[in-house]
Amino acid sequence: MDVLSFIECKRDGGAHSREDLEEFVRLFASGRIPDYQAAAWLMSVYFKGLSEGELRDFTLALADSGETLSFGPDIFLTDKHSTGGVGDKVTLILVPLAAACGAPVAKLSGRGLGFTGGTADKLEAIPGFRTHLSGREFRDQVKTLGCAISGHSADLAPAEAKFYALRDVTGTVPSLPLICSSIVSKKLAGGADGFVFDVKCGRGAFMTDLDGARSLAKSLVSLSRSTGKKAVALITAMDQPLGRWVGNAAEVLEAIEVLKGGGPEDVREVTISLTGAMVSLARGVSLEEGRELAARRLDDGSGLAMMKKLVEAQGGDGRICDFPEETLSIAKETFILKAPVSGEVEAADARSIGEGVKRLGGGRMSLNEEIDLSVAVRLQAKEGALVEEGDPLLEIRYTDKTRLKDALPFFEKAFSIRQKPMAKPVKDEKRGFILEVVQ
Amino acid sequence: MDVLSFIECKRDGGAHSREDLEEFVRLFASGRIPDYQAAAWLMSVYFKGLSEGELRDFTLALADSGETLSFGPDIFLTDKHSTGGVGDKVTLILVPLAAACGAPVAKLSGRGLGFTGGTADKLEAIPGFRTHLSGREFRDQVKTLGCAISGHSADLAPAEAKFYALRDVTGTVPSLPLICSSIVSKKLAGGADGFVFDVKCGRGAFMTDLDGARSLAKSLVSLSRSTGKKAVALITAMDQPLGRWVGNAAEVLEAIEVLKGGGPEDVREVTISLTGAMVSLARGVSLEEGRELAARRLDDGSGLAMMKKLVEAQGGDGRICDFPEETLSIAKETFILKAPVSGEVEAADARSIGEGVKRLGGGRMSLNEEIDLSVAVRLQAKEGALVEEGDPLLEIRYTDKTRLKDALPFFEKAFSIRQKPMAKPVKDEKRGFILEVVQ
Repeated sequence: MDVLSFIECKRDGGAHSREDLEEFVRLFASGRIPDYQAAAWLMSVYFKGLSEGELRDFTLALADSGETLSFGPDIFLTDKHSTGGVGDKVTLILVPLAAACGAPVAKLSGRGLGFTGGTADKLEAIPGFRTHLSGREFRDQVKTLGCAISGHSADLAPAEAKFYALRDVTGTVPSLPLICSSIVSKKLAGGADGFVFDVKCGRGAFMTDLDGARSLAKSLVSLSRSTGKKAVALITAMDQPLGRWVGNAAEVLEAIEVLKGGGPEDVREVTISLTGAMVSLARGVSLEEGRELAARRLDDGSGLAMMKKLVEAQGGDGRICDFPEETLSIAKETFILKAPVSGEVEAADARSIGEGVKRLGGGRMSLNEEIDLSVAVRLQAKEGALVEEGDPLLEIRYTDKTRLKDALPFFEKAFSIRQKPMAKPVKDEKRGFILEVVQ
Repeated sequence: MDVLSFIECKRDGGAHSREDLEEFVRLFASGRIPDYQAAAWLMSVYFKGLSEGELRDFTLALADSGETLSFGPDIFLTDKHSTGGVGDKVTLILVPLAAACGAPVAKLSGRGLGFTGGTADKLEAIPGFRTHLSGREFRDQVKTLGCAISGHSADLAPAEAKFYALRDVTGTVPSLPLICSSIVSKKLAGGADGFVFDVKCGRGAFMTDLDGARSLAKSLVSLSRSTGKKAVALITAMDQPLGRWVGNAAEVLEAIEVLKGGGPEDVREVTISLTGAMVSLARGVSLEEGRELAARRLDDGSGLAMMKKLVEAQGGDGRICDFPEETLSIAKETFILKAPVSGEVEAADARSIGEGVKRLGGGRMSLNEEIDLSVAVRLQAKEGALVEEGDPLLEIRYTDKTRLKDALPFFEKAFSIRQKPMAKPVKDEKRGFILEVVQ
């Protein structure tokens, strides 16, 4: 393969053949194309894009670069992907809930990086829970129980991981075709038949505005379909954290609350909608019918019962479903961040709160860092709340005073309070939790 | 330095500060910035360019990345740079001729690569000639004799060499700011006060059309001026080879012919114009006055006399100036390429002829290859010539029959002959040798 001509082709806005894309991925994955040539190609793609056909061929080549899971023709599997938010514990509820609705789920989850958390970390807060299953265990559990959650294996789409690491250091992360190929190739290797995308939108999300989120959602759905999969995307709000709790063990706690029929309204609403979309894909019913079934199964306790089975099947302590506060370890040391003035909470910035929790020890900058699963924050006032000076804004659970000191400025700047009352309260102007559905 | 932010800045069309450009060059040159990040930046520059200020700062940083030559305030040195052509033996004549006109020259020359030749190779065809002088020898000879030619030292602008090697394999060679910074940074490190650029234009040149050549010429002149140097650029024709001979030893032979007052008209004309430009910069006279002085010194034998001194000063056999045919070793085995049909020579494609000579053994693909200095071709018919079927087009001097066989197709396809006579001969439509002057 003439790699230089391949780079020049994309640089000049040309189109790659399927054969060339497959060979490029194969040679890069095996180290026979050096990083500097791949970097030049990635930057050319940043500027010139990939056509629909190129994107499909590139994504399939990434998906096929390693092991691929397969569950056979008798089962219609769905998988959910979130573009990453703060306080997003939806997966913990959605996986057992979808299974309880008769929509089997084989969920591959990653670790958290930067200011967003990862499901694999949250699950590690459950005593005994095995976050890494072998391919065989994963497959068997999906078939017998209807759901399983496992850490993303390095054997799935290894070329994607290698490209991602290079994009991360060459300024080529924010490219729509590269983002979509990265997400969809991993899902394809995971073997599901239908994909539900939760595209986060807002100050705490990768896509800060609705136009960007809509482009990403449309591209994810059409790319998935071009590979023969069913797909739907929901654009959901991510200006402030989802729910009240942010922090690994604490988010499991909140997930259990929701599975018990309580918990914050936004978490419940987003989870029911996403689960409904999975049910819709798996059972060939409408999104509304899927939503209704998901709500019913949440309220009748089927979701919680399935959660207990799931936890126990993976070696975890099932009592977290009965006595979550006693079983989950949340840091005891508490600091209360108080409102410096009276007024209405205008913003509780998700990104800034995520950065703060990372500095408490609850997040990491590089994938192999150890993290503290017990640290957390609980939002006492969310957007639209009226507070008096001295009222609690944020309950901070920490284990290390130095880290608390590092984290505090991020929490302080996360909140902005409008002192003069508006003609009508901020809350009424707020967008709903689900901003748009892209089918 | 945050290299990722630096890449993102250029990717997003932003401007770099001088400090950032200097640090980027310094860290890349010392290996502390990896090639893949430099490659991503180079591709961003390909798409987003560099402003005039950035280009100046980047060029100065490259020039200052290693040793720099300095000749003191008492001498105004000029240097000439050609963007590369076939049969271009101008430097061999121009250096002694300019010195004979009172314009001292410290010429740094490179080796040939691809289908174009390099002055350092041509000089090696002179028995005994030392193409690599130490910095001290080079400086001393310029001061005493008024001229010296030496191979480009790896100690001058080493960061430029490292960037160039990376551009070569990442599709980032054809970027105007990168081309200009590469050329001018080496000239700056060489210590001259005035630069004359010979921007080749035509089928055998990097710039195939006049618009491209004009942009390059203007950018080279304005960049040079922005660093405080005097500069002028001539755009010269490079559709067919310059002169009759192509090949290392043979080009020295033709250069001596011109220094003796003979030789092909195009070589003489281009050399006098470029030398005149150097004299103009060095002595503060007009281009026309410079040209006139150069022509006079060529015709009165001063150029030839200086050539003999230059050759002998650098250890070479001065008899090449008296008996060039006896002293220079040109391959004896001869093959004559004949006109396949009668008609008028429409093209004698410089690039194709250069590729043919390379395959005879007279050129190289990578900088460390050994080459055969004796192989050559002599154009018996140039553009506009009327030939009969069977007339000689090209005299090929070779040393290896297998190589001749490899080279022949390139020579054959170089010539195109128009069988039907035109209303007026092609020659009248031809452009002159000097297409434009950019000051």
